[in-house]
Amino acid sequence: MSKFWSKLIRGLDPYVPGEQPKDRKYIKLNTNENPYPPSPAVLEAIREYTGKDLRLYPDPNGDILKTTVAGYFRVKKKNVFVGNGSDEVLAFAFITFFKQQKPILYPDITYSFYPVYSKFFEIKANPIPLTGDFRINLADYPVDNGGIIFPNPNAPTGRFLPVEQIESLLKQNTLSVVIVDEAYVDFGGKSCISLIENYPNLLVIQTLSKARSLAGMRIGYAIGSPELIDGLERAKNCFNSYTLDRLALVAATAAINDRVYFETTCRAIIATREWLIAELEKLDFEVVPSTANFIFIRHRNRKAEELFSALRQRGVLVRYFKLPRIDNHLRVTIGTDDEMQEFIRQLQAILSGN
Amino acid sequence: MSKFWSKLIRGLDPYVPGEQPKDRKYIKLNTNENPYPPSPAVLEAIREYTGKDLRLYPDPNGDILKTTVAGYFRVKKKNVFVGNGSDEVLAFAFITFFKQQKPILYPDITYSFYPVYSKFFEIKANPIPLTGDFRINLADYPVDNGGIIFPNPNAPTGRFLPVEQIESLLKQNTLSVVIVDEAYVDFGGKSCISLIENYPNLLVIQTLSKARSLAGMRIGYAIGSPELIDGLERAKNCFNSYTLDRLALVAATAAINDRVYFETTCRAIIATREWLIAELEKLDFEVVPSTANFIFIRHRNRKAEELFSALRQRGVLVRYFKLPRIDNHLRVTIGTDDEMQEFIRQLQAILSGN
Repeated sequence: MSKFWSKLIRGLDPYVPGEQPKDRKYIKLNTNENPYPPSPAVLEAIREYTGKDLRLYPDPNGDILKTTVAGYFRVKKKNVFVGNGSDEVLAFAFITFFKQQKPILYPDITYSFYPVYSKFFEIKANPIPLTGDFRINLADYPVDNGGIIFPNPNAPTGRFLPVEQIESLLKQNTLSVVIVDEAYVDFGGKSCISLIENYPNLLVIQTLSKARSLAGMRIGYAIGSPELIDGLERAKNCFNSYTLDRLALVAATAAINDRVYFETTCRAIIATREWLIAELEKLDFEVVPSTANFIFIRHRNRKAEELFSALRQRGVLVRYFKLPRIDNHLRVTIGTDDEMQEFIRQLQAILSGN
Repeated sequence: MSKFWSKLIRGLDPYVPGEQPKDRKYIKLNTNENPYPPSPAVLEAIREYTGKDLRLYPDPNGDILKTTVAGYFRVKKKNVFVGNGSDEVLAFAFITFFKQQKPILYPDITYSFYPVYSKFFEIKANPIPLTGDFRINLADYPVDNGGIIFPNPNAPTGRFLPVEQIESLLKQNTLSVVIVDEAYVDFGGKSCISLIENYPNLLVIQTLSKARSLAGMRIGYAIGSPELIDGLERAKNCFNSYTLDRLALVAATAAINDRVYFETTCRAIIATREWLIAELEKLDFEVVPSTANFIFIRHRNRKAEELFSALRQRGVLVRYFKLPRIDNHLRVTIGTDDEMQEFIRQLQAILSGN
């Protein structure tokens, strides 16, 4: 603590991302990155673009990217906001819509950045417990709130909520903004984007870090009614005029345009996930149903923290959260088939005591 | 205005960057970009790096870039913070150091993002008037404050404040943070970085958008005592874990490492500026002394707003601020020699009524 820090900064608990160790080579199954490289069209577009224009500021509005996203989802450009990763988009959304008198609502077990944003922007929050089997039950979300946010599928559980249930919530909850964070929706879930036309208080946030293999380029976007998008633009233009650099804009546009590559790699990850779940069940793991590029697992006899450490020693990184209710679970990113076979081999060795 | 926006967002006046028109080709002298391309080493580094690793998150701490910046300025890595443009670094600095009981101080004529950050983070501000000839007089800055910030050289005036005067301020002003925004310091000014060792409340912020020709890649950094840097890290880690993408990190590192190219292009811009000033004085312009890559000028007989419009019609964009005290000035970025000769030709034509 420093006497030069504001009182606000002194009181914060910053978010801690999954570790990115440099000490040795790991099979990295801890930060939900895509095991497949970005589309070759993306890499080609970046290389072709790299030149003297980098001396000039990027388009502060990201018009070409917005038009591309809008075309892909059959919405209008005025329905699209773009940002430096979906984390930045989320941060702007919190200050724009959630800084209200009433507390906002999100699941007690969810993306752990939500409570961090709440404290950073001095927003009151009221976490709503998941059910015993880690479901979001939207009937538990009182209408009298300052806003609602949840990932769909949820993280770190991977459980998906059908669009019909979200529409039921929107019919009741008309006075505050509902944000559906669809970072992981492309691995078997279904997007709510079709609902934005009828519900001006719905904001859907997606990222290019997961299904489009571009975590290294930091690109996210939000889709919603023009009044929500305008609010996000106001926040962004009070913080940083140009949040996406020229190469990120080019990479994102090329990635959205390569639909075939995107669909092919998503299908591959889903197939690996289904194989992996069957293997883990043979090894006495309970697996929460997942429509994400990760699974949330618990062994019937062995402690998660011990398995986490043993895997780490053997060169396999998974994510362990030492938090109430989930401190006996591991979150495992779906890698390539080879990586997951190695993961299973290492687990077998650990469980058999070799 | 939307009923879904927070009260804070409703009350904001977002920053408006210089226009980036797409209707025709302009000689662009309105956003202080560098007329020379980035170093060839930067472009080569990006092309070489572009590959499958873009599927992975970047280093959230930017360690390689921080070490490079630290080596260049002969400070320690723990003295360096990096961000998505110096605008983002400034935003984090405002919330970390300036959200205090007492008002912060900055010049009344300065970078117009400072009042925007103040409102966004609910910080009280007390602008201090420049002298009649647009100087910052630090004796006018009362010690009882929540923080002090000014660009050096100042924008949009271009005037430079000697390091000795800043050290005198720091000797008196020990209880709040002093931020020197050195976006334009490389065009003939002198940095305050050497003072950080003795003044733990001094933060120096620089950018790669100007002297290093990388406006399109959005990279800035701050240098200060470890306690100030730690505070900035806390703010960043409550907002976005990975603010710089992989290619921005690579580009920045290569740019800092190519000292010869940087010094050569800075010298060229300074030479063009001195030639331009002499030409403008022949055309009856008053030119505020500049150590920046722009000049701030006023014609003795013709209104700035008219000149701005006439230049725009002739394909030359400069910056005009319709603000008290400076609404008869133009800010003109230093371009290449060819661009500035064309600028002078167009001015001659306008002034002679052709």
